[in-house]
Amino acid sequence: MQKWVYGFGAGQNDGRAEMRNLLGGKGANLAEMASIGLPVPPGFTITTEVCTYYYQHEKQYPPELQAQMDEALARIEQAVGLRFGDESKPLLVSVRSGARVSMPGMMDTVLNLGLNDRTVEGLAAASGDPRFAWDSYRRFIQMYGSVVLGVDHHRFEEIIEEAKITRGVSEDTALTADDWRQVVAEYKAMVEEVLKQPFPQDPQQQLQGAIGAVFGSWMNQRANTYRRLHDIPADWGTAVNVQAMVFGNMGEDCATGVCFTRDPSTGEDIFYGEYLINAQGEDVVAGIRTPQPMSEARAKPGERSMEAAMPAAYAELVDVRSKLEKHYADMQDIEFTVQQNKLYMLQTRNGKRTAAASLKIAVDMAREGLIDQTEAVRRVAPQSLDQLLHPTLDPKAPRKVLTKGLPASPGAACGVVVFSADEAETRAAKGESVILVRIETSPEDIHGMHAAKGILTTRGGMTSHAAVVARGMGRPCVAGAGGIVVDYHSQQLSAGGQVVQGGETITLDGATGEVFLGAVAMVEPKLSGDFATLMGWADSVRRLKIRANAETPLDADTARKFGAEGIGLCRTEHMFFDPERIGAVRQMIMSESEGGRRDALAKLLPFQRKDFIELFRIMAGLPVTIRLLDPPLHEFLPHREEELAEVADTLGADLATMKRRAADLSEANPMLGHRGCRLGVTYPEIYEMQARAIFEAAIETAKETGKAPVPEIMIPLVAMKKELELTRAQVDKVAKEVFAEAGMTIEYLVGTMIELPRACLTADSIAEAADFFSFGTNDLTQTTFGLSRDDAGKFLPYYVDKGILPKDPFVSLDPDGVGALVRIAKDKGRGVKPDLKLGICGEHGGDPASIAFCESVGLDYVSCSPYRVPVARLAAAQAALAGGGDRTA
Amino acid sequence: MQKWVYGFGAGQNDGRAEMRNLLGGKGANLAEMASIGLPVPPGFTITTEVCTYYYQHEKQYPPELQAQMDEALARIEQAVGLRFGDESKPLLVSVRSGARVSMPGMMDTVLNLGLNDRTVEGLAAASGDPRFAWDSYRRFIQMYGSVVLGVDHHRFEEIIEEAKITRGVSEDTALTADDWRQVVAEYKAMVEEVLKQPFPQDPQQQLQGAIGAVFGSWMNQRANTYRRLHDIPADWGTAVNVQAMVFGNMGEDCATGVCFTRDPSTGEDIFYGEYLINAQGEDVVAGIRTPQPMSEARAKPGERSMEAAMPAAYAELVDVRSKLEKHYADMQDIEFTVQQNKLYMLQTRNGKRTAAASLKIAVDMAREGLIDQTEAVRRVAPQSLDQLLHPTLDPKAPRKVLTKGLPASPGAACGVVVFSADEAETRAAKGESVILVRIETSPEDIHGMHAAKGILTTRGGMTSHAAVVARGMGRPCVAGAGGIVVDYHSQQLSAGGQVVQGGETITLDGATGEVFLGAVAMVEPKLSGDFATLMGWADSVRRLKIRANAETPLDADTARKFGAEGIGLCRTEHMFFDPERIGAVRQMIMSESEGGRRDALAKLLPFQRKDFIELFRIMAGLPVTIRLLDPPLHEFLPHREEELAEVADTLGADLATMKRRAADLSEANPMLGHRGCRLGVTYPEIYEMQARAIFEAAIETAKETGKAPVPEIMIPLVAMKKELELTRAQVDKVAKEVFAEAGMTIEYLVGTMIELPRACLTADSIAEAADFFSFGTNDLTQTTFGLSRDDAGKFLPYYVDKGILPKDPFVSLDPDGVGALVRIAKDKGRGVKPDLKLGICGEHGGDPASIAFCESVGLDYVSCSPYRVPVARLAAAQAALAGGGDRTA
Repeated sequence: MQKWVYGFGAGQNDGRAEMRNLLGGKGANLAEMASIGLPVPPGFTITTEVCTYYYQHEKQYPPELQAQMDEALARIEQAVGLRFGDESKPLLVSVRSGARVSMPGMMDTVLNLGLNDRTVEGLAAASGDPRFAWDSYRRFIQMYGSVVLGVDHHRFEEIIEEAKITRGVSEDTALTADDWRQVVAEYKAMVEEVLKQPFPQDPQQQLQGAIGAVFGSWMNQRANTYRRLHDIPADWGTAVNVQAMVFGNMGEDCATGVCFTRDPSTGEDIFYGEYLINAQGEDVVAGIRTPQPMSEARAKPGERSMEAAMPAAYAELVDVRSKLEKHYADMQDIEFTVQQNKLYMLQTRNGKRTAAASLKIAVDMAREGLIDQTEAVRRVAPQSLDQLLHPTLDPKAPRKVLTKGLPASPGAACGVVVFSADEAETRAAKGESVILVRIETSPEDIHGMHAAKGILTTRGGMTSHAAVVARGMGRPCVAGAGGIVVDYHSQQLSAGGQVVQGGETITLDGATGEVFLGAVAMVEPKLSGDFATLMGWADSVRRLKIRANAETPLDADTARKFGAEGIGLCRTEHMFFDPERIGAVRQMIMSESEGGRRDALAKLLPFQRKDFIELFRIMAGLPVTIRLLDPPLHEFLPHREEELAEVADTLGADLATMKRRAADLSEANPMLGHRGCRLGVTYPEIYEMQARAIFEAAIETAKETGKAPVPEIMIPLVAMKKELELTRAQVDKVAKEVFAEAGMTIEYLVGTMIELPRACLTADSIAEAADFFSFGTNDLTQTTFGLSRDDAGKFLPYYVDKGILPKDPFVSLDPDGVGALVRIAKDKGRGVKPDLKLGICGEHGGDPASIAFCESVGLDYVSCSPYRVPVARLAAAQAALAGGGDRTA
Repeated sequence: MQKWVYGFGAGQNDGRAEMRNLLGGKGANLAEMASIGLPVPPGFTITTEVCTYYYQHEKQYPPELQAQMDEALARIEQAVGLRFGDESKPLLVSVRSGARVSMPGMMDTVLNLGLNDRTVEGLAAASGDPRFAWDSYRRFIQMYGSVVLGVDHHRFEEIIEEAKITRGVSEDTALTADDWRQVVAEYKAMVEEVLKQPFPQDPQQQLQGAIGAVFGSWMNQRANTYRRLHDIPADWGTAVNVQAMVFGNMGEDCATGVCFTRDPSTGEDIFYGEYLINAQGEDVVAGIRTPQPMSEARAKPGERSMEAAMPAAYAELVDVRSKLEKHYADMQDIEFTVQQNKLYMLQTRNGKRTAAASLKIAVDMAREGLIDQTEAVRRVAPQSLDQLLHPTLDPKAPRKVLTKGLPASPGAACGVVVFSADEAETRAAKGESVILVRIETSPEDIHGMHAAKGILTTRGGMTSHAAVVARGMGRPCVAGAGGIVVDYHSQQLSAGGQVVQGGETITLDGATGEVFLGAVAMVEPKLSGDFATLMGWADSVRRLKIRANAETPLDADTARKFGAEGIGLCRTEHMFFDPERIGAVRQMIMSESEGGRRDALAKLLPFQRKDFIELFRIMAGLPVTIRLLDPPLHEFLPHREEELAEVADTLGADLATMKRRAADLSEANPMLGHRGCRLGVTYPEIYEMQARAIFEAAIETAKETGKAPVPEIMIPLVAMKKELELTRAQVDKVAKEVFAEAGMTIEYLVGTMIELPRACLTADSIAEAADFFSFGTNDLTQTTFGLSRDDAGKFLPYYVDKGILPKDPFVSLDPDGVGALVRIAKDKGRGVKPDLKLGICGEHGGDPASIAFCESVGLDYVSCSPYRVPVARLAAAQAALAGGGDRTA
């Protein structure tokens, strides 16, 4: 016969902590605590399989369930010496849900179940405290009425308010036994009025109702939404825990509390928590009375610590704390009740904590020997490092939300609103903190983005220009805030009827996507020694190399500081927007002849060479992958006629010609247009200039330092082997020329971005012409899904929200589609060249789930924006520890 | 020992027609003719393997070659009783190249080789004709000098011109033996002056030189280019044919001629050709003398037929003609020489022919029993049917080319230039023939495209809107004519300095992409009974079903007329542009609420229902696949402010709101934007209306005819199974409602376009929710290559031209990339549902090579534009005959 009910406490523990899938987290841990000898009130857990059965059988329970429950209840009765429904000494129970993971929206708790008009008298007599009994009964009606019977909780609150007004008191504690008896009568009348039937008096019926409510709440709308958002299968089900009540509210020798075994905010090794004397669980969090500290050391004047008030129970609890940490080897979040000086444990679970606490606890516990170093590496969520590297909003600071966009680049920023890059730069130069607000950004805005403390756009997704560049610079960014209307002309933005003028202050939280009116207080990041320690441990276990995407010396320096092992993507076009250069770039674009283009490119050569020399110096001894020009040429032209006229003037061209050329260059779908190696093939002089700049820089670096860098030259957007062959031949030709001129030769590699489905599908052929592959998963995601990252904002959030896509595929690599192509490319590429170097340089290179995928495929490195390097190092270590994958292939 | 040299004629024929890979076409056929007893002058073929060897061994010949050549030459000498280099009776030979396929740019022929200052005297004596001997010698020096030694041929022509002026004659024939002797002396002096060494006198050295020149020409630039364009591997190599000379120029009993065994223009079964008395081969084509007809029946007054002039040789040739046709079972293109009344055959090969001739010859030969019906089906190139279905330019008509674009839709058209769809319609209504000229077309132009005789655009590729729609309508179209600048404002176009005003006449050739000034005479298509016969034979062997892409009753009728077996793609959005409807469509788009959209959609419902009823009627008993709305909504809004204002006015909206909404809808990359099922998911009311129109139409048709159609509803742009599940659920819901209202139920299928790489890669999952897949290979090509068909015009022609891509992948399905995805999708889809119906509905559905691919993959049908249906039927038959593929999978 299948076992549907697992007992705990009173000497019979059917469950263990490992059985959380079957018993839910709460039930499994109650059994675990009981089995290591901690004082747990006896009870039983109805398994998650009952829930699944219930939904698979049109809401019928397994036929054996009732008998098993009866037996388990009888065991409780025997253990505590009370009987459920007994009118003189009634057993009361709590009913709590308990899924594998805690889930908002589900029915949580009903306490004091088993009370009715007769047992309440028995409880009063047995406890000798009628006030306690009637207070317990009214609490039960209130909880049961609202969560099981669905009566609006305000209706209950109104009755208490009325009672207090009538009695002229302001605190619940001032109400007497008779007052509560009166409240109970009014509660029952109100419930009967609402439900057209009396409040259930039969304890068995109460129990059935509460259990049914738990199972019912598993499929309510809020729970369904939460599950979809968190990818929790509906067939996991929830368990139900039925447990003998203990009372923290039977008098001054009673108490209840909630603690963490370490400080969840800082991670400090102190006993952290709150308790209340003569209170039931929900009172601690309800805020009606002020909870008191646990230890005397932490007590402020006027506070009464548990250590002082209940020294014996406290000492026992300190002992429990130590046992639990040793047993679970993690910081615990516990709930306890003291009934007449006797301690009872009601819950333990791994405690939630801040990023800083997570780091400190992991490192401390490893040092204490509770866990080993690899376990410490596993314990810290890589994403949480963002909190340690960027300013964050002070959680206690008041704030007024204006709107919400996408959390495009982490960190908080506060400043005055400006609507143009130039103004951002001007005001920043005067020492102002500015937030650059744009409908969307383009490469022309880079100087303003750099000058700004944060960036806000109303269009574009997680890999829009604004998002990518902001992450690269470590600037907080909220992107695609569609609720905001920006009016450049009147220099104001509006959202939900609220208007913000240019020059007024707003605050961004790039980690949540929230935008706030005015200034919100912030907390500056502090990097402790623990950070370096954990990173060291992570480095010692990871296999994947971590490189950074960087073009500027500043980016490269930042990347090195955060531990990058080279540059995986240097986007040379970012070097073209400098005001000193853009003129020559535009002259090149406007030239209708190769000769004209070559003249203009000759002006750019010294700039590019200098760029590369600086990067080679900073990355001395490390690989530097340089991608040749990728974007379509029209990206370098201004959009507005006035600006075009200005450019025409500078170039000595007439506006009409300029407009015609701009129109010629414009594209219906620039993402799929004349860009990448297609430019290199049709205008070979561009790649020739870039290759020359690279080789001359490498040789100059070699002569200067005695050690030649090994540039990795990367050809973008290859779809056919011949494209790579042609452009590679151009590069090789220039190499020969430069080496001959310099009288020396250096090593170099030529490889390609794999960023088109066709490149993946023909990777065996392309590998023959490539020294390395770097997966450009941004563009590969766009083409695989047929999804423009610039336009996806219109429906992608809806898709993710509705669970059509589990995650934004521009944030986390889609393993089924994009990942399948990466695997195909890896198999085909390594099939031809077993040692083919493989990396990834899309935005996914900084995403932990994507890094785990890269590890499983057996890539050699990931490359991400400098501020993501620590995240990537830790994620790579965790991925290596998780093992698996097809790395041997 | 490897055999490098194959003899033919004189009783020893080492080769056969099947050995063309080894011996080249010419050599193989010479041996074949000799072996069936035709009079072939003896000779030998140096195999293509020598050419390959030569290039693999730094231009060295195989060591055994010389001995084999000596032996073969000795056999010729013995057969004809002359010796090579003999000063009294010299053997002369011709040296000709002969690859597997004839290839322009290669060295072709050197005649009379073996002549020098001494053998010329022997020839004079032996022939008794010094003029013939010296004429032959000067011809040899001229040919050898130009093609082997590389002397500019003008230098030779100048010397002859000078000689004729000096002698006061105007015809070569007026020059005497002494005159030619003098020319020879001057030729030799000129060659020595140019080359700084004398003209080679040693016949063996001459022979080596000529053979070397043939092999050398295999790798010259023109040949390399040609090979790349025609996908001919360099390692095929060329053969060299060395053959005893026979002379058509030894007197009035000598002649030379070129014939076809049937009329290559009409296919008529007559002996068609030309000959010249007393002439050498090149004289027939040189145009200096007028060639004469073969048969007396064809001789016009003043002409002297070969039948009359040389009855015996003619009779023998007629016999040869018959033997060759029986032997080769195909129309032959032959070259012959008559020397002193004796006939010699110098070449035979399958003759090139027009589309009409190809069709007639294939059907005739099958009826004559020369070939069977399946062979007749194989013989006609499917693409050539275009010539039979559309008007074509009269090949003899004079013409003045203005420019050239892409051959986007076949047929010729002539008319006055108009620059707007409205003007096209207005002028066409008055009976004018118009050519609609646009920079590019959009769905708003459809009425004008329909009214026009032809369409010319300056942007866009083979699958641009203009090209796709024109092909669908059977309108000739030249697209992407980048050489033309269109100025709408001044109502003129210009190209290469030539200006054409609106209202002036131009002519398009949609089969070549050429644009001509003025009117060019045209030939109207005539469909013979042979066409229907061949189509019938094709239908009896093909496996693939052929459907048409059609939305209008006219298209559907045309498709049926051409033999379509259903509609494979009905693009419902094409139905939205009708002036009666576009208002409601725009109202729907402008509505910011679901209710507003539903109101507008309700207005569209009756129109859509009527559309479907008409299609169901025309396609009675055949499947009709209807694709729900696919393009992004902004495609339905006008682009210019005036037009927007007009729309705003119609809708009672203000222009500012209209502009804001239009700006909201605009996309950076519409191809990858908010379209396809993404619209269906976010605006379910649109698909609901369309589904309702389909079901109501199907039920009305069922009630009217007693036979219900089985609509196949197709959801576009699915990337995730959930998208299909959601939209399918909408369709099913509407079906239930309509069936309940109507009191009857009909069958229907719901499937999806497979047009994104992700859909292919996850086809197993998607197949679970699909009744059928239809590969949308246009979009799949765009995403697989990352190539926008609207923008590819800037570099795709260059790519194809340079051989980076063998073919335009929008014209012919790319088997390595797109094809690989189609195979993956088929394997995964059929893996889940072995009977999953699979079709293709991109533009590739009408391309023979792509159809062969579809056959090899085992698709069930292809769907193409109505005018391509016959092409597809024939191509599908040929693909079935070719067999192979993974159809059993």
